[in-house]
Amino acid sequence: MEKGIRNFEFQNPTKIVFGKDQIKRIDSLIPQDAKVLILYGGGSVKKFGMFDRVVEALGTREWAEFGGIEANPTYETLIQAVDKIKAEGYDYLLAVGGGSVIDGVKFVAAGAVFDGDPVDMFGSGVGKGLPVTKALPFGTVLTLPATASEMNNNSVVTFVEKQAKISFASPHTYPQFSILEPEATYTLPKRQLANGVIDSFIHVMEAYLTYPVDAKVQDRWAEGLLQTLIEIGPDVVDEDNHDYATRANFMWTATNALNRFISPGVPQDWATHQLGHEMTLAFGIDHARTLSIVLPAMMKVRKQQKWDKLLQYAERVWDIRGDSNLTDEEKIDLAIKKTEDFFASLGAPIRFSDVDLDETDIPGLVEALVRHKKENISERGDFTTEDARAVYTAAL
Amino acid sequence: MEKGIRNFEFQNPTKIVFGKDQIKRIDSLIPQDAKVLILYGGGSVKKFGMFDRVVEALGTREWAEFGGIEANPTYETLIQAVDKIKAEGYDYLLAVGGGSVIDGVKFVAAGAVFDGDPVDMFGSGVGKGLPVTKALPFGTVLTLPATASEMNNNSVVTFVEKQAKISFASPHTYPQFSILEPEATYTLPKRQLANGVIDSFIHVMEAYLTYPVDAKVQDRWAEGLLQTLIEIGPDVVDEDNHDYATRANFMWTATNALNRFISPGVPQDWATHQLGHEMTLAFGIDHARTLSIVLPAMMKVRKQQKWDKLLQYAERVWDIRGDSNLTDEEKIDLAIKKTEDFFASLGAPIRFSDVDLDETDIPGLVEALVRHKKENISERGDFTTEDARAVYTAAL
Repeated sequence: MEKGIRNFEFQNPTKIVFGKDQIKRIDSLIPQDAKVLILYGGGSVKKFGMFDRVVEALGTREWAEFGGIEANPTYETLIQAVDKIKAEGYDYLLAVGGGSVIDGVKFVAAGAVFDGDPVDMFGSGVGKGLPVTKALPFGTVLTLPATASEMNNNSVVTFVEKQAKISFASPHTYPQFSILEPEATYTLPKRQLANGVIDSFIHVMEAYLTYPVDAKVQDRWAEGLLQTLIEIGPDVVDEDNHDYATRANFMWTATNALNRFISPGVPQDWATHQLGHEMTLAFGIDHARTLSIVLPAMMKVRKQQKWDKLLQYAERVWDIRGDSNLTDEEKIDLAIKKTEDFFASLGAPIRFSDVDLDETDIPGLVEALVRHKKENISERGDFTTEDARAVYTAAL
Repeated sequence: MEKGIRNFEFQNPTKIVFGKDQIKRIDSLIPQDAKVLILYGGGSVKKFGMFDRVVEALGTREWAEFGGIEANPTYETLIQAVDKIKAEGYDYLLAVGGGSVIDGVKFVAAGAVFDGDPVDMFGSGVGKGLPVTKALPFGTVLTLPATASEMNNNSVVTFVEKQAKISFASPHTYPQFSILEPEATYTLPKRQLANGVIDSFIHVMEAYLTYPVDAKVQDRWAEGLLQTLIEIGPDVVDEDNHDYATRANFMWTATNALNRFISPGVPQDWATHQLGHEMTLAFGIDHARTLSIVLPAMMKVRKQQKWDKLLQYAERVWDIRGDSNLTDEEKIDLAIKKTEDFFASLGAPIRFSDVDLDETDIPGLVEALVRHKKENISERGDFTTEDARAVYTAAL
């Protein structure tokens, strides 16, 4: 067994400003002479007053806005923001929204100063995959806890024409600051709250449910996030329950699920995300709702490869103890069942049939994985398209 | 009950380079044209070859050295490094050593460019407590996991003449990078390894053992570090057991015990450290060995104030479960006993008598706390000198 934390480099420069009434802090976080472009998605940030609070905090700074960044932000939309910046000369970007807006702004910040065609920032058959060597500075105001994009340098962009979701990351695409106001979640509907819990849960699982390397802190911390999500999940998805402590725990858990605090020096999987991305592309299913369908099937199909970690997950996260009269496999199967039940209890789909898909939809999804060069993925690079077919089939 | 994560600001810019054979990375981490001053403590960094590896990594850069920084680094020694820098003009500092060397270099980095008398960076009756607005850039090569100084901005400096240990912190005193090679711990004697485990354990406890604010991630992560230290402690202090995974977990746990990942938005205590500092000043006892004496007594004397967290600590960290037929107080007392036994099992003292002190030494320690203005400390600011006397007495 591989043993011991792998060599790693870790740095996360993002400043987090967390709590009540923090948007006003923008005035001290953005240079006084900055010309600011505020980027957002739909109308909710204006409807619920957040946009006005941001503008008030900007004070006398020159600013403009770019709205309409969609869920699963598209290159086609984002490139318009890049053109606007090149034409009008903004030097600081402010993302106000959830993970889609923030992911989009990361591309815009880098694309606006990229030498060459911004499409070449992406690989996977879409562009040349050239390195990102600079980006405009940007901050974020988070409205939806889910992706942790507010405290990492990852971005996933959708290419409508090419029917692809491609990610990129650069040391230059960390937000300079992110403002986290738990009360911003009070206006979210149940479905988005559930998506945030599930997205966070599966971000942790991608870094945790692989094979043991005896990285004790990383394991304990991942388990702590999972236990927290299981504990608060039912209250979080009660959209009328505006308990501050609950929403604060939700927001901080989501950020820590993918800011790399739990993953330095450990193997990671991400096959669940790859398979889920194809379902979003092909059928427009919410990202999180594809993950709640794929993960349980992934746990079943990859049970042997993930055996040791599945057993640890059963014992530590679900408290299925050694003194329970169960075999190891019974413990694992029970933990998988509890995971499914947890997702379902949040109102999330856990089967193809829950989103009106069936076996006839699988060949297209597998072909898309091949087309997007998503072969030999997962923690050991041994996850084939046949494995993908088996996982989709197990999720029927 | 105060409920919910408090407003907080979090940022930790230090880059961690962790693993095997990483010192060579210095060449890519320090500017090519830097004039470097290497600061260290005793001869061990030269004896065991680390100094030579650092010099090799510096390549053609101009460098000089400043050795002799003692455990509990003194202002009197450090100010000599400040003078050397002012006289010879170094623009990058490199700390090679443990927490004492790194704490010392933080003061040197700020003191060398401080406008005015560097003593005024300190408060607590020693100086004017003026703000630190700049510092020379510096990196560290860690030799002794214990203080987490390699990934925070805190520094504790001892003033021999004034018999005081004073801390300061500034946004400018984070290391730019820290190199963590777990194999560097292979040459440490049992006593220093035990000190590192205990220092880390109590850093976590200062942030954890206060009162609950329903900060679930912070609590789970603190508990995860404590569980890890309890699990690996016996193997870590076996100085001949050079198991890489064990030492890697030890080193990463020590860093995370005080890099603020576990403490944003939660109350903190630090009274155990305050009481321990006076014992080090008066009797020259190792910092960690004062903490292993003070903490158990602190838990007993402050049982009522810390009741809820002590119970959570018993149940989650020591697995004293609800189904055990114990009253809550019995669970708490058992957890305190297990904590004492853990420290003792590492070879650490847990009573005044273990370090040849007795009740006649208490008045002087309490007077020193008053002299150093360490009154009304702890998480509620309600810890009086009478409480201090009670804690010292409970530790006899």
